[in-house]
Amino acid sequence: MDQSPFPDIAHQTASFSDGLVLDCGTTLQRLEVAYRTYGSLNAEKSNAILICHALTGDQYVAEPHPLTGKPGWWNALVGAGKPVDTDRFFVICANVLGGCMGSTGPRSRRDHGADEPWSIDFPAITVQDMVRAQKKLVDWLGIERLFAVVGGSMGGMQVLAWASLFPDRVFAAVPIATAPYHSAQNIAFHEVGRQAIYTDPDFHGGHYRTHGVIPARGLAVARMTAHITYLSEAALARKFGRRLQRQNALAAPVFGERFAVESYLEHQGSSFVRRFDANSYLVITRAMDYFDLAADHGGSLSAAFRGTKARFLLVSFSSDWLFPTAESRAMARALNQVAANVSFVEIVSDKGHDAFLLDEPDFHRTVAGFISGAAEAAGLQ
Amino acid sequence: MDQSPFPDIAHQTASFSDGLVLDCGTTLQRLEVAYRTYGSLNAEKSNAILICHALTGDQYVAEPHPLTGKPGWWNALVGAGKPVDTDRFFVICANVLGGCMGSTGPRSRRDHGADEPWSIDFPAITVQDMVRAQKKLVDWLGIERLFAVVGGSMGGMQVLAWASLFPDRVFAAVPIATAPYHSAQNIAFHEVGRQAIYTDPDFHGGHYRTHGVIPARGLAVARMTAHITYLSEAALARKFGRRLQRQNALAAPVFGERFAVESYLEHQGSSFVRRFDANSYLVITRAMDYFDLAADHGGSLSAAFRGTKARFLLVSFSSDWLFPTAESRAMARALNQVAANVSFVEIVSDKGHDAFLLDEPDFHRTVAGFISGAAEAAGLQ
Repeated sequence: MDQSPFPDIAHQTASFSDGLVLDCGTTLQRLEVAYRTYGSLNAEKSNAILICHALTGDQYVAEPHPLTGKPGWWNALVGAGKPVDTDRFFVICANVLGGCMGSTGPRSRRDHGADEPWSIDFPAITVQDMVRAQKKLVDWLGIERLFAVVGGSMGGMQVLAWASLFPDRVFAAVPIATAPYHSAQNIAFHEVGRQAIYTDPDFHGGHYRTHGVIPARGLAVARMTAHITYLSEAALARKFGRRLQRQNALAAPVFGERFAVESYLEHQGSSFVRRFDANSYLVITRAMDYFDLAADHGGSLSAAFRGTKARFLLVSFSSDWLFPTAESRAMARALNQVAANVSFVEIVSDKGHDAFLLDEPDFHRTVAGFISGAAEAAGLQ
Repeated sequence: MDQSPFPDIAHQTASFSDGLVLDCGTTLQRLEVAYRTYGSLNAEKSNAILICHALTGDQYVAEPHPLTGKPGWWNALVGAGKPVDTDRFFVICANVLGGCMGSTGPRSRRDHGADEPWSIDFPAITVQDMVRAQKKLVDWLGIERLFAVVGGSMGGMQVLAWASLFPDRVFAAVPIATAPYHSAQNIAFHEVGRQAIYTDPDFHGGHYRTHGVIPARGLAVARMTAHITYLSEAALARKFGRRLQRQNALAAPVFGERFAVESYLEHQGSSFVRRFDANSYLVITRAMDYFDLAADHGGSLSAAFRGTKARFLLVSFSSDWLFPTAESRAMARALNQVAANVSFVEIVSDKGHDAFLLDEPDFHRTVAGFISGAAEAAGLQ
């Protein structure tokens, strides 16, 4: 496995010299928000859609990834003529705070002292901190109200945080395959991934960059674990089943690839480490674990959205066991209790959590319809 | 974490100087089967029940564990006056081939060469190999026909293999919370655990004993991953939810215990490594992954049981997502197709796969009733 850290490349970035006060009490003296935009902002600045990315996503939502060369991660949904139509809307996507693609995070230079990266000492952040960083970008772009905020998984958590923190700044909110809190099972899977990273001898207590290495094996194991949770059992059975990669497997040694599903996971793990930073993985998974909107509002999820004027589209996928439909349904009920304008659609799919990233026509039609209706309500041409 | 390997303690063992021919083609020159018995064998030798243990179980089914001091792992089901009544039946439980509690496995001395353990070089084994080793023990005990073979999870796989390989030697078979093959998702979780072990710097390519260490962290991560799959989301939510172990968690560093569920998993991991061998974990998980009864019979599960006279009780648990009810149902159908005598009961429980080890009155009543009826049919007093 390639042990060289991935390069620091140049990203389009907005810098904020006033920094950011974090939920944990620490103030980041410097804040950089790396972002990409697609389409044109109209004269009224009323056609902006913010896309929020998931745990391992980034700002390259609708164009090739600068490290991997792969198509944008949400090309299926975002682009010219797509449900989030860049011919019509000004689409913004920012790398989250704590990320490793240009926004302030563990790879950034620390505030005080030598010219060293934060690494493991980067402060603990919350999903709300991520959203506050995005809001600085939106303010800086001169956009008073986002037409829509759209995101899946951890991106959906950010959508919920946007609607809760800045209700007047969001006309429409589309939280997809997400939940208002991270469940015990999800925390448990994250913790296993983190422990795998700590176990890697190349982790060096988080200071691996100083040693010129990356904890590639541990990070790969974390990715593999997570990846299983992104798929449904049916999807795994259909894609791989019990197919073997080579004959006479029994006579082979205990090591090595055997079942196709193992080889697939190993590929997922080893390609991931070439584009993602282990300390970012630790910081961001922790932010997801902390997320609990109801707890932040005296135990009432409804209270998090009291008085909201945003219109919501909640989307879940029937075979998603990481963020099951029941959690979207609970959100819909909470929004109903404060008389919010809410639609809730469960898409039937056997592709698991991953479905939100895939070519799911029903899902795309649902989003396109909602956005088109909301645009009419907003008086957009 | 304690890095000292657990001690080699003395176990009650049967030795077979004729060794064992394995499915992979290798012959083990020496075979030891460590076992425990409870109750008395009757004069006709017709009241024997063989208990087959799961991945991380052992022969100490109904008495305190010699390393941990904890009660027998199936005390709830096996003992005087229990559903598997040791006042009435002669109960046998053997450590599986490949295990680390006295039966031949990676901790055993290798066949040829120096006085070294097999370690990572122990040959690949199958569930059927485990059963053939058990049959040697049963033969040696002079038992022509087992009254019953009972086991859960991988123990259930062994029950199925017994009924398929030696149909005349089993009067009643009770496969619990199991399946006739290991699914892609289950293989995937196993592989993640194995990769975590390989990542541990103390693994030393499997030769950790020579270095006087054990890959404690990697093995703990493997156990943690597996443990999540043994529980249901509902059980995790009820037991731990999002409870924090200490206040002011956000201000704490990224490391350390925070959520109760993390602390619980860490405890599961660290106590496991004090009683289980990493190479055994590799060998046994692989045996489970290989298990595919239908594939061994031209793709027909029914063919695996053609002509069987055994009576079956299949038990599944409603919240078990590792070995879901659907797989037991498919087994029941396959057995029906060859006109086998089969009962199938799904126990309603929210405790997940683990339920088979826990105090589940419905489950215990079901097993007690089946055994009592089978004993009458067998003419046992």
